[in-house]
Amino acid sequence: MRAGREPAQGVDERRLWQRHEAMARFGATARGGVNRQALSAEDIAARRTLADWAAARGYRTCLDEIGNLYVRRPGTDDTAAPVLTGSHLDSQPTGGRFDGTYGVLAGFEVLEALEDTGTRTRRAIEVVAWTNEEGSRFQPGTMGSAVFAGDKKLADMVEVRDSKGTRLGDALAETLAAMPDADRRKSGFPVAAYIEAHIEQGPRLALEDKTIGVVTGIQGSRWFEIVVTGEEAHAGTTPLGARKDAFRSALAMAQALQELMHDPADILRFTIGRFEVMPGSPNTVPGRVLFTIDFRHPDREVLRERGGRIAAICKAAAGPCQVSIRETTSNDPTHFDPAVVDLVRQSAAHLGLPHMDIFSGAGHDARYMAPLCPTGMIFVPCEKGISHNEAENATPGDLAAGARVLADVLVRLANR
Amino acid sequence: MRAGREPAQGVDERRLWQRHEAMARFGATARGGVNRQALSAEDIAARRTLADWAAARGYRTCLDEIGNLYVRRPGTDDTAAPVLTGSHLDSQPTGGRFDGTYGVLAGFEVLEALEDTGTRTRRAIEVVAWTNEEGSRFQPGTMGSAVFAGDKKLADMVEVRDSKGTRLGDALAETLAAMPDADRRKSGFPVAAYIEAHIEQGPRLALEDKTIGVVTGIQGSRWFEIVVTGEEAHAGTTPLGARKDAFRSALAMAQALQELMHDPADILRFTIGRFEVMPGSPNTVPGRVLFTIDFRHPDREVLRERGGRIAAICKAAAGPCQVSIRETTSNDPTHFDPAVVDLVRQSAAHLGLPHMDIFSGAGHDARYMAPLCPTGMIFVPCEKGISHNEAENATPGDLAAGARVLADVLVRLANR
Repeated sequence: MRAGREPAQGVDERRLWQRHEAMARFGATARGGVNRQALSAEDIAARRTLADWAAARGYRTCLDEIGNLYVRRPGTDDTAAPVLTGSHLDSQPTGGRFDGTYGVLAGFEVLEALEDTGTRTRRAIEVVAWTNEEGSRFQPGTMGSAVFAGDKKLADMVEVRDSKGTRLGDALAETLAAMPDADRRKSGFPVAAYIEAHIEQGPRLALEDKTIGVVTGIQGSRWFEIVVTGEEAHAGTTPLGARKDAFRSALAMAQALQELMHDPADILRFTIGRFEVMPGSPNTVPGRVLFTIDFRHPDREVLRERGGRIAAICKAAAGPCQVSIRETTSNDPTHFDPAVVDLVRQSAAHLGLPHMDIFSGAGHDARYMAPLCPTGMIFVPCEKGISHNEAENATPGDLAAGARVLADVLVRLANR
Repeated sequence: MRAGREPAQGVDERRLWQRHEAMARFGATARGGVNRQALSAEDIAARRTLADWAAARGYRTCLDEIGNLYVRRPGTDDTAAPVLTGSHLDSQPTGGRFDGTYGVLAGFEVLEALEDTGTRTRRAIEVVAWTNEEGSRFQPGTMGSAVFAGDKKLADMVEVRDSKGTRLGDALAETLAAMPDADRRKSGFPVAAYIEAHIEQGPRLALEDKTIGVVTGIQGSRWFEIVVTGEEAHAGTTPLGARKDAFRSALAMAQALQELMHDPADILRFTIGRFEVMPGSPNTVPGRVLFTIDFRHPDREVLRERGGRIAAICKAAAGPCQVSIRETTSNDPTHFDPAVVDLVRQSAAHLGLPHMDIFSGAGHDARYMAPLCPTGMIFVPCEKGISHNEAENATPGDLAAGARVLADVLVRLANR
């Protein structure tokens, strides 16, 4: 115990890094990443380890009905709603060691820093590991926080099956049974504030040489699936005038959509990530193309206006082919509480850390907490912005810097 | 025997159609097509049936070392080189009942028509069923005719394996063993002329309402494989300026290539049939695209000039990505013997059949015979131009019309 210092000074860069290394062993891949999908044996092992660390500090661990795991450091006023921090421990199948894990470990590091600096807070601070943020094994993602917020129903989620046919309810029961010492608790309890630390998963902090991203919100997104139907034909014999070439039509659509989505300010995100051409034979004119659109923007009006023009543009570019357009997902932009955002900005400044305001391009559990309580996020840089990739990396120093800001903000929020 | 008529009058529309129906049973698919891949049990059954029909007429059947099957109707001068006609009995995995089969059955129908009309010819006329034209089980296609022409070596071909690991040499030995009554013969023997009947596999005859296509040649083709390499990135977080989007670059290439290949006369054939986007996740910026180019034209100079610009155009459109270009196949255009082409044209006119000159868009075994002897082809319409498809169709009347032209031309060639 080295009491009397500022809470942020209690953050131990080496301990935090070692905890990352310990967690990275659960689902470790040969290429340095992790495969720790939601409710898997690896996910269970990671959860149990966190619970063990909590027990070693004397903290109580709880699980709610969707498996969200909470580690509670009590405050001086047990009747006050807690402040929540955390993220998720599950990963993509070829994921990195920091996405999600950092938010949980930074939160736990803060609890230990408060312990080590002898800091008491009025409200309890709880670290949460949300269930199934990635959605790679069981869809949809951000499931734990969505159930907490009442946005998704537990009864629907337990019926979801993974690609091997395993029912989420059964996998969840295994996870719950694997932690018999954890108390049970109902999700959706009152929360005074929520703050989540995360790697940026993009290159802007690195490009601007900043350590802290003061996250002002999460951009909205609209996803579409476009199916273009033409007619297979022999590539050697069929004149262009007689073709219904689904590839050629889809190409014209993609071209027109790129023009629609052109943004000189480079804020709008437009991605065609899936583009399947069938039957995919070199000498057959394609009869069918399926492609996806991932369109994101911080401004709801831009999402509405440009997204609303996608269908007409695809139809106009269809040529001799048929086209069907389906919107598969829609999320409004999230704007974090200005007071929380301001606290993050002030803390970064107070700690002398280079920082910038940033709008999150990726979705996070914080999206579901924002309507429930004052919410914010803290970003730290990841190497070259690479994420959802086994090569994902971050520096011990940046991770510790983010945890220091988190410590400062959490103490302020917990004393409000 | 109804002797004394013109050979073409001996063609029996009903018999020809029934033989198509009989052949369509070997490898029949539920959707009305055939799956009769080279050297399969179905291919063997089809060959044996042809040999049975030949035996019933007293014709000798031979097999050469690559399994090409010949049915010989002797001429009056046994020392003269024979005239050859035919095509192939093997099919695509989801192929039609007429592609190839028609050329073999039309040839056999002519032999019977000559018999029925008491027509003698100076030269023997032989019907050939070339081995493995399609190349769908064992690559490359047009294998039998290429070996006959000395363009491919038997020793190389027997080592080719299908996707299940079966060696072509073993499958070929089975085929040869299944026809113990057939005489053996060495391929590459002298041939006086070659004429092949085939469905058009394109829509031009149908569009122009013609019954006979007077085939003047086979267009040349160049195939390319393009690999675009970028970098996977998060679709929500990565600004356009920081992306190496392989899809976006490939799109720009495809667009520029379409402009290069634009042909107001609609003679040039340009097809992108395979276009694979990896990893194919909606919210990941694609890191790799592989696409193919199938470029065909009757004019060698156009193939040379435009094909020669493909690499530079792809490189210019690559943006932040890398691109590699590989030419996988190149075939010069084939121009058939003007005298044979003229015979086909005259025969169609003589028989009062609507006809047009046509350059073949598809490759055929005739390509390999053209350097060896005077060669030509006769096309008949197929429904909507659909081929390499279980829906492939043709009318009994058109098939018989083509066989009548074939009979007329074969007799003239066999009496030269």
